[in-house]
Amino acid sequence: MTGNRTGVWLVGARGSVATTAVAGAAALRAGVLPPTGLVTALPDFAGIDLPALDDLVFGGHDVVVSHPAKRAELLTRAGVLPSGVAGLVVDDLIAADAEVRPGAHADAPDPQWAVVERLAADISDFRRRNGLRRVLVVNVAATEPPVVPHAAHADWSALEVELGRGVVLPPSSLYACAAFLAGCGFVDFTPSTGARLPALHQLAVERGAPYAGSDGKTGETLVKSVLASLFTRRALRVRSWSGTNLLGGGDGANLADADRAAAKAASKAVVLERLLGHPVEGGVHIHHVEDLGEWKTAWDHIGFEGFLGVRMTMQFTWQGCDSALAAPLVLDLARLLCLADGGGPVPELGFFFKDPLGVVEHGLEAQYAALVRWARR
Amino acid sequence: MTGNRTGVWLVGARGSVATTAVAGAAALRAGVLPPTGLVTALPDFAGIDLPALDDLVFGGHDVVVSHPAKRAELLTRAGVLPSGVAGLVVDDLIAADAEVRPGAHADAPDPQWAVVERLAADISDFRRRNGLRRVLVVNVAATEPPVVPHAAHADWSALEVELGRGVVLPPSSLYACAAFLAGCGFVDFTPSTGARLPALHQLAVERGAPYAGSDGKTGETLVKSVLASLFTRRALRVRSWSGTNLLGGGDGANLADADRAAAKAASKAVVLERLLGHPVEGGVHIHHVEDLGEWKTAWDHIGFEGFLGVRMTMQFTWQGCDSALAAPLVLDLARLLCLADGGGPVPELGFFFKDPLGVVEHGLEAQYAALVRWARR
Amino acid sequence: MTGNRTGVWLVGARGSVATTAVAGAAALRAGVLPPTGLVTALPDFAGIDLPALDDLVFGGHDVVVSHPAKRAELLTRAGVLPSGVAGLVVDDLIAADAEVRPGAHADAPDPQWAVVERLAADISDFRRRNGLRRVLVVNVAATEPPVVPHAAHADWSALEVELGRGVVLPPSSLYACAAFLAGCGFVDFTPSTGARLPALHQLAVERGAPYAGSDGKTGETLVKSVLASLFTRRALRVRSWSGTNLLGGGDGANLADADRAAAKAASKAVVLERLLGHPVEGGVHIHHVEDLGEWKTAWDHIGFEGFLGVRMTMQFTWQGCDSALAAPLVLDLARLLCLADGGGPVPELGFFFKDPLGVVEHGLEAQYAALVRWARR
Amino acid sequence: MTGNRTGVWLVGARGSVATTAVAGAAALRAGVLPPTGLVTALPDFAGIDLPALDDLVFGGHDVVVSHPAKRAELLTRAGVLPSGVAGLVVDDLIAADAEVRPGAHADAPDPQWAVVERLAADISDFRRRNGLRRVLVVNVAATEPPVVPHAAHADWSALEVELGRGVVLPPSSLYACAAFLAGCGFVDFTPSTGARLPALHQLAVERGAPYAGSDGKTGETLVKSVLASLFTRRALRVRSWSGTNLLGGGDGANLADADRAAAKAASKAVVLERLLGHPVEGGVHIHHVEDLGEWKTAWDHIGFEGFLGVRMTMQFTWQGCDSALAAPLVLDLARLLCLADGGGPVPELGFFFKDPLGVVEHGLEAQYAALVRWARR
Repeated sequence: MTGNRTGVWLVGARGSVATTAVAGAAALRAGVLPPTGLVTALPDFAGIDLPALDDLVFGGHDVVVSHPAKRAELLTRAGVLPSGVAGLVVDDLIAADAEVRPGAHADAPDPQWAVVERLAADISDFRRRNGLRRVLVVNVAATEPPVVPHAAHADWSALEVELGRGVVLPPSSLYACAAFLAGCGFVDFTPSTGARLPALHQLAVERGAPYAGSDGKTGETLVKSVLASLFTRRALRVRSWSGTNLLGGGDGANLADADRAAAKAASKAVVLERLLGHPVEGGVHIHHVEDLGEWKTAWDHIGFEGFLGVRMTMQFTWQGCDSALAAPLVLDLARLLCLADGGGPVPELGFFFKDPLGVVEHGLEAQYAALVRWARR
Repeated sequence: MTGNRTGVWLVGARGSVATTAVAGAAALRAGVLPPTGLVTALPDFAGIDLPALDDLVFGGHDVVVSHPAKRAELLTRAGVLPSGVAGLVVDDLIAADAEVRPGAHADAPDPQWAVVERLAADISDFRRRNGLRRVLVVNVAATEPPVVPHAAHADWSALEVELGRGVVLPPSSLYACAAFLAGCGFVDFTPSTGARLPALHQLAVERGAPYAGSDGKTGETLVKSVLASLFTRRALRVRSWSGTNLLGGGDGANLADADRAAAKAASKAVVLERLLGHPVEGGVHIHHVEDLGEWKTAWDHIGFEGFLGVRMTMQFTWQGCDSALAAPLVLDLARLLCLADGGGPVPELGFFFKDPLGVVEHGLEAQYAALVRWARR
Repeated sequence: MTGNRTGVWLVGARGSVATTAVAGAAALRAGVLPPTGLVTALPDFAGIDLPALDDLVFGGHDVVVSHPAKRAELLTRAGVLPSGVAGLVVDDLIAADAEVRPGAHADAPDPQWAVVERLAADISDFRRRNGLRRVLVVNVAATEPPVVPHAAHADWSALEVELGRGVVLPPSSLYACAAFLAGCGFVDFTPSTGARLPALHQLAVERGAPYAGSDGKTGETLVKSVLASLFTRRALRVRSWSGTNLLGGGDGANLADADRAAAKAASKAVVLERLLGHPVEGGVHIHHVEDLGEWKTAWDHIGFEGFLGVRMTMQFTWQGCDSALAAPLVLDLARLLCLADGGGPVPELGFFFKDPLGVVEHGLEAQYAALVRWARR
Repeated sequence: MTGNRTGVWLVGARGSVATTAVAGAAALRAGVLPPTGLVTALPDFAGIDLPALDDLVFGGHDVVVSHPAKRAELLTRAGVLPSGVAGLVVDDLIAADAEVRPGAHADAPDPQWAVVERLAADISDFRRRNGLRRVLVVNVAATEPPVVPHAAHADWSALEVELGRGVVLPPSSLYACAAFLAGCGFVDFTPSTGARLPALHQLAVERGAPYAGSDGKTGETLVKSVLASLFTRRALRVRSWSGTNLLGGGDGANLADADRAAAKAASKAVVLERLLGHPVEGGVHIHHVEDLGEWKTAWDHIGFEGFLGVRMTMQFTWQGCDSALAAPLVLDLARLLCLADGGGPVPELGFFFKDPLGVVEHGLEAQYAALVRWARR
């Protein structure tokens, strides 16, 4: 084990976000592009003892097999990777792909304890094999439906018993469990259950494993988290805020499944009420438009009331590339989680999430200030 | 002089903003509407010794004569006053109108010293006649063209001499000068020159008169001042930010005059560079659309770059009622200026302005924090 | 019976559309406003023997009771009637309201034959009482869920028997049936079933009663029906067209009921495929935003492909007042249906509908040309 | 001379539009892409004796020199050519580039007769060298400032004399003149003067040379030409229509020159008045945003009035790739101009232009019908 070499173990390692993160880290190391979109490259984070991009080593779990060069080509065609970058980073993608192990299926055969042990062993082997000082596990797999409640979710010793008997956890929680058993930090970049069960919280604290989540804030919710203060600071009353999200490709298809969309919409809805201080009608609607591919377009319509009750309107359209927005944050989170002391949630990382764990602040400015204060402490 | 009775002397007292402010204060006093849009009614300002709305007495200068009931009716038709309010507040409008004195014309006969003395006397008479503890002067008149530079602008003693000789100041500066001579605070809610001349600054400091400005932040720039942090905090690079403002009625017609539009656009342009930390192409364009009346619509198109240089886009449309957005801030500023100690600019009021005096911060959250800290000190 | 006096029998006579139609006809008769929005007032319809607005007499059915002056006041507050108009037209509203009879409930007691007879008698009495040359029935009631299929819908003699036995028709079809039995034309301005059953078609033909429908084209679909030709005429390929409709008040609440929304969305979906010549992904989504009241906002996002497959985007936002868009078309349809010869559907009235009966053309220009040709024949 | 081989002589042959047209024709010939965006490939034009894409041979004039492979690469990076196409078509681009001759400079030395003769000889040589049945000249060079009027513009014999004496025509008119002298048809895809001088019209008629123009309708105006009928056919009154165009790259920089923008805006303004039947306030504004490159974004805000004067709003945003929208129309126009009989303007080609010559119809549907009728006559 030498210096600050840090493993980034990506759950969903062959998906677009993971591939973009690995390709991007390689491109930045090669010095061909500036670190746009990478929060930890901002001057506020200068001088903090974070692992350098050169220190990051990638591996992960996935339930599918695909060729890294092919993935890079598809991302290039979709406009996620600039032309020329794929050729430059293909060796890094191949190296990372060689560190990918088979993931956990939702319908894997019982009992789950064997699965968790195998996942944890994959992570530990990766660490040992690459002489890494630490490994952080980041879930960038597809969004799961909400978890079916189970009594054993409340307590680690009960859960340990149940895992030995059958199926009690969704895949995202198996990964969180494996990460903690391997003594690694865990980040949930999706709205899936992940570490958000009392039993897994106990385990994390016990093993000294930090965790953060949930659901990366990369688009419509990000806009909300700055825009809301316009209304609250100026005493303008928001009467309705209706959001429509057109999502393409993988994420869109996945969220077209009503159950999963429910998980996503719930994680988005809470934000607005917290930001504005009162419930507001309108809702968030997610529609799948295959043709948009890696891109998403959000349209929000805000009806508000000013002096003497005059009604006014604001609308915005956000046309973003999902993987390009998420990937640098994956690198940021892996780097920043290295700064955590001890086990349990790290509320100061709430800046990155739609549904921050352990904290109620959703305003981006306040979240950023808390993050910098924590990182520089 | 009793209690906290405070005069609000409005330059442009028969315009839409002034009329809406007087009508709104009366409606709020009558308890028929909640104080939406009034920043000083937010919980953060509770317990601070501000004059109550009941303590405010209105008067002002204007170059035109019009009947207050007629103005209220026009504002009702334009959707600025809710139906029913005009009838309720017409007595207050008539009372305020009785305190309006003839304003200063740009092409008034030389020399200007006599004009300034007369304007100052109008303010002092208003104070005495109504037994006011203090008077604050707020400029809500039409935007002027940029001032023609003059050597005497640099020094009060030189300016005093020149005022006795001829025409050396634009009207907005005559009002600022008169306010200071009468020992009153001055707020410039427009981008006109107002108090922004070294000579007038000297006078304000000498007479212990506070001042604040410039150019109320009520629409497109307000949005920018929250939205920019989305890009800076997430290390996204804004490559272009193009703003188009469609303005109706008075303000629009006035700004269709290229000179005045230049003043407005300049005050808007500086904001973005300060917020983003670098110049950005695009510009702000103002177009007059008579038919929009009291309403304005801004459309902004933002081209930005994310991870690996991927280009993305955000657009917003703001459909606001200008007078309804500005009027409560006029009341806020008059109330808050009462808290100022001594003469000179009050940078903590920068929250309200596109081009805040004496401070470089343009981010709304930081401005709000500074304002609350100052008000509660 | 004298001259061209024509009865307009409104199903949903106390709703917003009906009230606006009656108020508007009165205001136009009074000569205080130009006939904006009234297609039959265009020069292309000059010289055609249509009943004048002065010839129209209003009555109708409704399941609720409400005071006409109160309704006029609410429409004024909502911005549908200009201030001043309500006072001018209140006598006309009261007169029309005196001609309103209790409507048919979906859950009325069996059998339905008695209901139909009573509805038809209401219409015939109205005609006799007012000495009308003819009566046209226009359904502007709330949208119904899709009809439950029944074998008797296929044949009038079977239906006649079943109506004597129990519940076999939704309310909209009871009204259509009553209209035909009374020898009157019928217009369905909603997507409800109305006359669209083979049995009722037989009855209409037999009684010489013309009918038209379905679902007034007043917003998003209206835009589609002109915009689509941009893409087809220029050989640009539309790849996705996603529509979001935010609806307030009555219509929105009603369509929040998933069944009824299904009826509406189906009527909207067919349009695009017909206009473009191929199916296109995206869909139409309807969301209820109570706060929008009488207003609706539609946002459409169109992804299209140009030369060499280059992807481009168009978006539009439509902010319309539903009742103000629908009401003049109700007057137009009543006037134009007077020109129909014999019984059955009038495809040339397809210009007014999202889902035109008896014709596949959805393009507005072609529909308008067909309408004018027919009216002037 | 064999079969239907047709020369397309592009003025501005090394610009983006010309390069995209040549590359696109080659890609379509190679059968790798469908003919999206090519109007003459629509079924309505099947069976008409147009030159096939295989029959087209490209050449042209340009005032700059650049390498075709380099241009193809830049267009690929800008997203105008799909990745992979450049490699496929580079030989065709090189072949076309070999047929490019030096263009005419605005500040060329007097007199212009020699220039015109040389330009005409270039075209005739191209025709002879390639054994072409005919050559069509298409101006896709940068927009010129409005022409300075000259008495000789009114009459060809006067103009012929003046051309022998000095500078009397802008470059676009020199090209039109050369085309006519060489007996070739001329298309002006820009708003420059081109053939629009009585003297050149005389020459065209005399030489039997057809011509068409002006200013390709590819974006905001194209949308207007379908959208306007929504308002006129429904008797809705448009009160304001404000357009903002953000243009990047070459065209944007060029139009940032106020004179040239004036030419463009004038050609855009007339459309709306013709479409709506009355003047409407608002205007068209063109702003240069270098960063947009080959892309343009138009935002239009339309304020309209419905029944009883209710005010409503429509907005649209058009995000298009200029060269990809223009290039197929260049091919269409070259093919269709082959169908013209005799000399003079071809009003039936008005479908393609913002400012159609010889016709007042601006509605796209009517224009399309006229085009098809003419082509199939």
